[in-house]
Amino acid sequence: MFDWENDREQLLDEIEEMISRKRYTQLRDRLVTMEAPDVALLMQELEEEKLPLVFRLLPKEQAAEVFVELDSDQQEMLIQGFSNTELKEVLDELYLDDTVDIVEEMPANVVKRILRHADPDVRKSINEILKYPEDSAGSIMTTEFVDLKASLTVEDALKRIRRTGPDKETINICYVTDDARHLLGYLSIRTLLLSEEDDIIGDIMDTNVIYANTLEDQETVAMNLNKYDFLALPVVDTENRLVGIVTVDDAMDVLQEEATEDIEKMAAMLPSDKPYLKTGVIETWKARTPWLLMLMLSATFTGMILNHFESSLAACAVLTSYIPMLSGTGGNSGTQASTAVIRALSLGEVRFTDLLRVVWKECRVAIFCGACLAAANFVKMMLVDRLLLRNPSVTPQVALVVCATLVGTVACAKLVGSSLPILAEKLHFDPAVMASPFITTIVDALSLLIYFRFATLILGI
Amino acid sequence: MFDWENDREQLLDEIEEMISRKRYTQLRDRLVTMEAPDVALLMQELEEEKLPLVFRLLPKEQAAEVFVELDSDQQEMLIQGFSNTELKEVLDELYLDDTVDIVEEMPANVVKRILRHADPDVRKSINEILKYPEDSAGSIMTTEFVDLKASLTVEDALKRIRRTGPDKETINICYVTDDARHLLGYLSIRTLLLSEEDDIIGDIMDTNVIYANTLEDQETVAMNLNKYDFLALPVVDTENRLVGIVTVDDAMDVLQEEATEDIEKMAAMLPSDKPYLKTGVIETWKARTPWLLMLMLSATFTGMILNHFESSLAACAVLTSYIPMLSGTGGNSGTQASTAVIRALSLGEVRFTDLLRVVWKECRVAIFCGACLAAANFVKMMLVDRLLLRNPSVTPQVALVVCATLVGTVACAKLVGSSLPILAEKLHFDPAVMASPFITTIVDALSLLIYFRFATLILGI
Repeated sequence: MFDWENDREQLLDEIEEMISRKRYTQLRDRLVTMEAPDVALLMQELEEEKLPLVFRLLPKEQAAEVFVELDSDQQEMLIQGFSNTELKEVLDELYLDDTVDIVEEMPANVVKRILRHADPDVRKSINEILKYPEDSAGSIMTTEFVDLKASLTVEDALKRIRRTGPDKETINICYVTDDARHLLGYLSIRTLLLSEEDDIIGDIMDTNVIYANTLEDQETVAMNLNKYDFLALPVVDTENRLVGIVTVDDAMDVLQEEATEDIEKMAAMLPSDKPYLKTGVIETWKARTPWLLMLMLSATFTGMILNHFESSLAACAVLTSYIPMLSGTGGNSGTQASTAVIRALSLGEVRFTDLLRVVWKECRVAIFCGACLAAANFVKMMLVDRLLLRNPSVTPQVALVVCATLVGTVACAKLVGSSLPILAEKLHFDPAVMASPFITTIVDALSLLIYFRFATLILGI
Repeated sequence: MFDWENDREQLLDEIEEMISRKRYTQLRDRLVTMEAPDVALLMQELEEEKLPLVFRLLPKEQAAEVFVELDSDQQEMLIQGFSNTELKEVLDELYLDDTVDIVEEMPANVVKRILRHADPDVRKSINEILKYPEDSAGSIMTTEFVDLKASLTVEDALKRIRRTGPDKETINICYVTDDARHLLGYLSIRTLLLSEEDDIIGDIMDTNVIYANTLEDQETVAMNLNKYDFLALPVVDTENRLVGIVTVDDAMDVLQEEATEDIEKMAAMLPSDKPYLKTGVIETWKARTPWLLMLMLSATFTGMILNHFESSLAACAVLTSYIPMLSGTGGNSGTQASTAVIRALSLGEVRFTDLLRVVWKECRVAIFCGACLAAANFVKMMLVDRLLLRNPSVTPQVALVVCATLVGTVACAKLVGSSLPILAEKLHFDPAVMASPFITTIVDALSLLIYFRFATLILGI
């Protein structure tokens, strides 16, 4: 097997050398043994002007597979250099959903050229899929699936699959429709193969079909594919007619993308759909600044609270040195709770009706965590800060204020952190946006208020 | 289609009523139209004593499918109540990898009973799979795959698949081995069906096989399945003999689990492999306290820095009120960078050799972000803090100190946030653990040092 991580540098050198010595047959023989995604990764490392040369060495089918895996910049560059015949050859080998993905990324003049050279059927399908909103089931489906009639025998069905199969994205699942293209049932190629030749499709198909609507969110579709362990999910239009299928490989990509998006939002970034190193500096800056700015300005409140208690701080200056620890611990506790709840929400493990259960659970966790932290902190303040660092102003009373605040802060943090995302989901906001930085800001303010309240109570300042 | 989210309450009521009125045939007819994961979800909401009754209504095959989807508590309860015949019936219907998953969760006495009633072949396979380390390819593979000999004709191969297929987890991909079970190649059922009946398997198979070793990390296996859009990946032992396959549905689960684990680690929690609401309070507490404790104690350093500069703060008290904003912004900037890099690392988009590219990119992003934030903050301090809130101690010089610190903090945060995870990966630590809370603590300390440095320079305190 080709081990990309280890052999990459060496392989790149080999290939560069074959190109410079014009050993094209040798290069071709090396490339055909590789899987398309690896060839694409390799081509991304080559100098741009060598790209068309290497691409033209590949056999037609592999060339199409590699083409799909390239960056859109490189795809565009190759298309610009293609003759009309070459373009048509590549297009003929592509699966429809891949063609649509490519078309979506290309500038208008390239799109026009692609559509002009696609088969009329394909052109019609491309145009239809392009109409669906981004991130909908319709936008990621393919229209190249196997459909069968309920009256066929297994033998006839297998014949039909043998005849039409080469152009379909998958033959593993076949769909049964009536004359008006309404979805009646489905069956796997396995059921077909394990049945008798004269069985009737209508008798052996499964009529409990899980399907999606064209406008449904792609994440829901992917989650369903995952939940039911399907290899494909049929997509129907508003009149319940079968218009396409979403295959498991695309569903997997969707789940990965959605996880990345959630992670980005939780870290206060606007989501980007490009890999990290492909995103430009300006783009990254644009994705990161809005939230930073908002959170920075919202920290005004904590500043105001501190100003308000300026005289208390002056009366007992040692209190200042524990503020970063308190706000850090509050932030971390809140982040833990919000992250756990946000992930559970997006995996469908928690819904709005579970709000009270979640809050009750977090309450108890908060008490345990808070007690632990307070105890550890009391010991640390007495032994390290007072004895070891010889700071006489760290009195047991001061330690008590800090520890009581810790318990209160952790409790607030867990409550705010766990309930805000659920409430956000109920109000149809994105729960991931309610994540750590946002909650941290709220918890910061709360923990300061608690701190000064305890300071007044216990130290009388 | 059954819409779980909306129909759940209603369906539950219906079913409770059918049970109380003993309308078992009606209940059975309702349940057989549902997919196994939905029946399992429903059963989880039922009272425990009704579980065996509902389970026994299900037809054998569906019963097994539902059984796999239940919680391990419920599985255990059902097994305890099964007669030996019932247990054997369920076990016979299960796929091997599912049986292994169940065995792993059961207490010793239940495991013994399962092994006693499993077929000798199955028992041997279970014991073998149980030997592989957790999270390895071996531990998630199934040994129920289709293997063919290279000398067979397509016709004979199809006959063999028809004969052995019912017991295999998938027939969509078939593997070709020699007499010593070495992996020679693979072919899809589609290739088989689209070939001539007298073609020889050895001629039409694909010999460039991507495979995994039994001890390989399950995440690598899942990533490869996703990268190459495979439906299954073969697993070989140290002597290169084919021992099992990992199917795409299991790979999808692995990717989801690993994403959850990364998210948990990034939020300073020890990862848990149970759903949020199924994890007990004590377990959650144990997963969350260690990092909270460590981060709390490490905040001692920030406290020490503040103590050290106590006199500076006393000389210009207004500086205190901007500390939360500075440390918040530093933390958020660092989190953004570290999260982006950690996710890119785990998707394989970034490797150690990219370190300089990453740092160079983050440097430029930091300058843009820092400049933006500083400008906005200067305006805000002058207009809001000085004019609107009438705080005369907010002088342009103080604003300059705060803004210069902002730029320095953002730069530090982005550099530390982006480089630490990559260095961690190089040293074979888990990069996700180097995430926000850890980096925040470092950035907190750095930002304070920068703050007081600028305060000394500009304000001369």
